[in-house]
Formats: sequence, structure tokens, C-alpha cells
Amino acid sequence: MSHHWFDDPIADLDGALLVAARERQLQLTKPPGSLGRLEELGVTLAAMQGTQQPRMDQIWITVFAGDHGVTAEGVSAFPSVVTAEMVRNFARGGAAISVLAREWKARLEVVNVGTVQPLEELPGVLDARVGPGTANFVHEPAMTVAQLHDALAAGHDAAERAAIGGAQLFIGGEMGIGNTTSAAAVACSLLGLPAAQLAGPGTGLDAAGVGRKALVIERALARHRSDQPLTALQRLGGFEIAALTGAYLRCGQLGVPVLVDGFISTVAALAAVRLRPELAHWLFYAHCSAEPGHRRLLEILDAKPLFELGMRLGEGSGAAVAMPILRAAAALHARMATFAEAGVSRA
Amino acid sequence: MSHHWFDDPIADLDGALLVAARERQLQLTKPPGSLGRLEELGVTLAAMQGTQQPRMDQIWITVFAGDHGVTAEGVSAFPSVVTAEMVRNFARGGAAISVLAREWKARLEVVNVGTVQPLEELPGVLDARVGPGTANFVHEPAMTVAQLHDALAAGHDAAERAAIGGAQLFIGGEMGIGNTTSAAAVACSLLGLPAAQLAGPGTGLDAAGVGRKALVIERALARHRSDQPLTALQRLGGFEIAALTGAYLRCGQLGVPVLVDGFISTVAALAAVRLRPELAHWLFYAHCSAEPGHRRLLEILDAKPLFELGMRLGEGSGAAVAMPILRAAAALHARMATFAEAGVSRA
Repeated sequence: MSHHWFDDPIADLDGALLVAARERQLQLTKPPGSLGRLEELGVTLAAMQGTQQPRMDQIWITVFAGDHGVTAEGVSAFPSVVTAEMVRNFARGGAAISVLAREWKARLEVVNVGTVQPLEELPGVLDARVGPGTANFVHEPAMTVAQLHDALAAGHDAAERAAIGGAQLFIGGEMGIGNTTSAAAVACSLLGLPAAQLAGPGTGLDAAGVGRKALVIERALARHRSDQPLTALQRLGGFEIAALTGAYLRCGQLGVPVLVDGFISTVAALAAVRLRPELAHWLFYAHCSAEPGHRRLLEILDAKPLFELGMRLGEGSGAAVAMPILRAAAALHARMATFAEAGVSRA
Repeated sequence: MSHHWFDDPIADLDGALLVAARERQLQLTKPPGSLGRLEELGVTLAAMQGTQQPRMDQIWITVFAGDHGVTAEGVSAFPSVVTAEMVRNFARGGAAISVLAREWKARLEVVNVGTVQPLEELPGVLDARVGPGTANFVHEPAMTVAQLHDALAAGHDAAERAAIGGAQLFIGGEMGIGNTTSAAAVACSLLGLPAAQLAGPGTGLDAAGVGRKALVIERALARHRSDQPLTALQRLGGFEIAALTGAYLRCGQLGVPVLVDGFISTVAALAAVRLRPELAHWLFYAHCSAEPGHRRLLEILDAKPLFELGMRLGEGSGAAVAMPILRAAAALHARMATFAEAGVSRA
């Protein structure tokens, strides 16, 4: 078996700093524990960044876009063409993630890993098209092994750009009509679950539509279920899902903290963590989305999302909304006075 | 009965704009409902601000500080002197709320409504001392009627400054050793609940301490329980709690949206809403804190907090951490493209 880039080691957290950061939290001018989960977040960010002065100012957002052959089965409320239309909307700054990136002064890039049609040149959009959408995985593998490695590499390259750009946090987003179907199929494949447990309304199917979607996924699982992350991605995944998996893995290797978004991103994280369990230390989970299967995935990953606001848009939008909680945790850890500095009495 | 400033009417939301804002959300480039609670937040902010372009850039934070005579009963893990020490810490920028205010470029002011000892002049700290802390409400009313009106007026004045300063959001914070005891007493008085249901560890009491605290509150309730908001505040409240009540009421009159913080702030909001139910339209609730009684109060108020992160510090810190969620909701409502503008196909 050949050696791949994702076989290289994941970075370690700074263990000594972790201990020192916990000690620092006890010195800050507040009752111990009174910042709740923000204390643990601040400590973790300190250990990730190797400093008692963690910062969360340089935010990198990459949205991967790709189409899905399985849309031929009528699994989405929206037509496939919307994937490309939304890429243009990202480029013009009108999408939710565009607005949020501007609001937080985050760097936003879009990587086209596989719209059905090639796209014209667009500002802020990189062309890394792996193919004209995936194949319909009900009938054949979603992608070839070569395409899988190209998609993973697109994620790798985004993480590299983020690290070179000084990113203190990486947010991955996705756009791809049909991708809740693909994500549910990959997760069911990896976890040995029936489709009905993870198939949900996505962008807006009714109950009958969800039932049909679950049947489509069951047919695909019956054909080529696998509990191996790379095989499941190749047979049932999407280019943008595989790219997210690659991006998360490379972030872990480079020591860039990741804030995982919603259902589809969490499936990409599940595949990445199944491949390299030690990656889990580098992943924060933003929110529990309204897509019903997300809660189950978060439980399986022992992930504690920061909030639950009924979001289900994707694009990285939930992570972008949650980001300031990490920024607050970093700032509090770095900049609150200690009892000694402030001359405040202790309990 | 004389006419008080808080008898003047609460502002109305712009009903026509509310309808138009809901319509606008359906036009934005996302599946309907996919931004979850951020859609309702954006719509509400639009109606509050009377514009389809709501902004959440000018944040005003006032922290009210006051001492509590009931600390003589041993109800807090920290000594009373910490109230004044923390005011100095706010002034020097070392407290949690100081750090968060800087991080979000919010305006922060501290109003001393009643530390035991007068304080030296401190930058960013206004002197509006109503008295040298409240009286021990186990034995006598916490404050006189005149002191109650002075404390309410301190809140009124803060809201006026915020409005004049162009605040798009008001966050009230509190600092006062002993104030979870006072807040629990006020809420039990208003709601007819036994002390054990709302007495909690506060800054860090153990189970035995919480039991003693509940007994202290029961003695006070037996002496002078009242379901009238002003009477309950006067007999059992704190200067900073009454000031928060006054600030919330004045914000509602002036049409300044409020983001309520934790347990103590929620009790102040409860008193304000009992006095003027229509104020409820102007209040957002930031989080469900770790103080056990908070969840009960939120349920009674039918309040839906934005997250639950185990915070229990006060100072307005939970609201400050939650503020960017409102900022995101406002930005998304104001600046996302519509389907027509972006040329994106609909479902």
C-alpha cells in the first residue's frame, strides 16, 4: 500500500501549555468555573496555538462546491443548477457565508471541485474541478479512486493556503445540491446504520420526499456499503465532502484549529476521524443543526456543539455564526487580569 | 398615586416592517427557514430599528455595582469587599466584561449604585451611590422607597445615555457580592415560589451553603413577601437589580433593543415585565446560565436563550458573548442577496 500525504502524523497539542493554561484559568478574576465552557475552549486554544495569549483574529473560510449524480433520483428540493448559481452568489458577496465573512473580516475562498458545467472565471473562486459532478451512486461508485485523491488534495491545498495565510481557525463550508443524500449515505456506510436514521429533509423535502430519499440511500448501501472511510467516500461521497475531509486532515497535520459546521461537514469530519482518530483534538463543533441526523452524528463523535439555533443552510454558515464564541474564549483567556494583578480578594 | 417616568408608554415595534421583513427573509438566497432562529432575530431587529437594514455595531454595556446587607448572613463564597475590588478591575480593563467590550468595540460604563464604601474616582465609573449597600433584608426592607426610585433612576439614566450615544443594543451587567440571594428572593416573592426552587450556588457555595442560603431567603420571604414588582424590589432587591429594571424599562420606552444576561439580570427583567408586560417585545435573552434557578425563570418568561454554555459570572458577560449572534442575524437580514438579485433558481 502506498504512502499518502494523509498518512503523515497529526500535530500534537502542547501538553505542558495545556496544564499551564488550566492553572491560569484558576488565577483569572472570576469564580473558578464561572465562564463555563469558555474556560475549556480558551485552554484548548492556548494549547493548540502554543501560547497563553491565543488569538482568533485570522479566520479562513473555504467553501467547496460540487454536484451530485444522485440528484437524478429526485432527492433534493432544488435543481442541480443551483450549485453553480450559488457559486456565483458567493463570488458576488450575496450568500449568507459571504455576508458573515465580511462581518468578521474573515478570508473567504470558494473552491469549485466539481460543478456539472465548468464555470467562467469568478473573483475568489478557484477552479479545482475533479469532474462534472459525481456519478449517480445508486448505480455506480460516486467517483474513481483517482478522483477521490484529487478531491482530498483540493482540501489539502486549501488547508495549506490557510496555514500560509496565518489562519488561527479554519472553517470549511460546502455547497452541492444533493449533498445531504451523499453525506447520509457515507455516514450510514461508516456507522452501519439504516438510511432512515440519517436521511432528513435537507433543503426542504416533505415527509414523503424524505422517505424516497431514504430508499435511494438504502439501494446505494445495499450495492456498495463499506466501513472504510476512503472507500465509503469514493463510492457514496461527493467531491466537496471528500475535499472537506482532506482539509480537516491537513489542518490537523499543520496544527490549525478547525470549527466544523453542520451535518455534511460533520460527516466529512467523521470520515477524517475514522481515518486518523487523533485528529479529533483539532476539531471544534459549531452547532447542532436542524437536519435530524446531525444530533446522532454529534453524539457518536462525542462532540459538544456550542449552540442549537435550528440552522441548516451549510456553506459554513453555522460555524461562521459560532466563531465569535471561540474569539471570546481566546480573548478572555489571554487578557483577563489575575487576582494578584487586580488586587481582588479570593473566596 | 403619583405618575412615575416608568408609567410612560413602551415603544411599539413597527408592525408593517415586521410583515415586510418576514417577506424579505423568504426572498433571500437560502432555503426558507434554513437560518433557523437567526431569521426571526433578523426580522425582530428590523422591526425594532424600523429598517430592512438593521445594524448591530453600536453596543452599549452598563454594569451596575452595589452591595448587599444580606451578606451578613454568610450567603456568599466571596467577601463584600470584592464588589468594590471588581469595580476597580472593570476600570482597569481586567475583568471579563472589560475584555469582551474591547473585543467587540462596545462602549462600557460602570455605575456604582451602592458599594459599602464610597470609591475613589475611577475612569469609566460613574458615581450614583444610592446608599452604603442595602440593609439586611432578613431584618428590614433592603431599601427605602426613595432609594428604590433612585436606583431605578440610575438605570433610566444609563438607558438615556445609551440612546443618545446611538446604541443599537443595550446590555446590562451587574456586580454585587450577595446578589444571587437578593435576586432569588425577589423572584420567589414575585412568583410565589419557595426559596429552595431558586436558591443556587452563586459564585460557588457547596450544597450545605445553598441550603443555608435558602433558609435565609425563606426567613426574608416570611417577613415581607410581595407579588408587586416595586414592593418586592424595595424589600428584597439590590440597588443594581433595581437599576437594571429601570434600564430595561427605559430602553423599552426609547426603543433600544436589550440583550438580557444571566440569572440576576433575568430577575430584573422579570420585575420590569411584571410592571410593564409590553416591554417583553424589546428583550432578547442571551443564555441559560449554570445557576440552577435560571432555567425556571426563562421558562416562566417564555424566553428562548441563544445558547447554554455553563456560564455563571454575571457582569453582562453571557450577553456580551452572545451579542455577535444578533450581529450576524442583522447582517444576514440586511445584506444577503435575494433570489432575483442573484439569479438563483428557487425550489
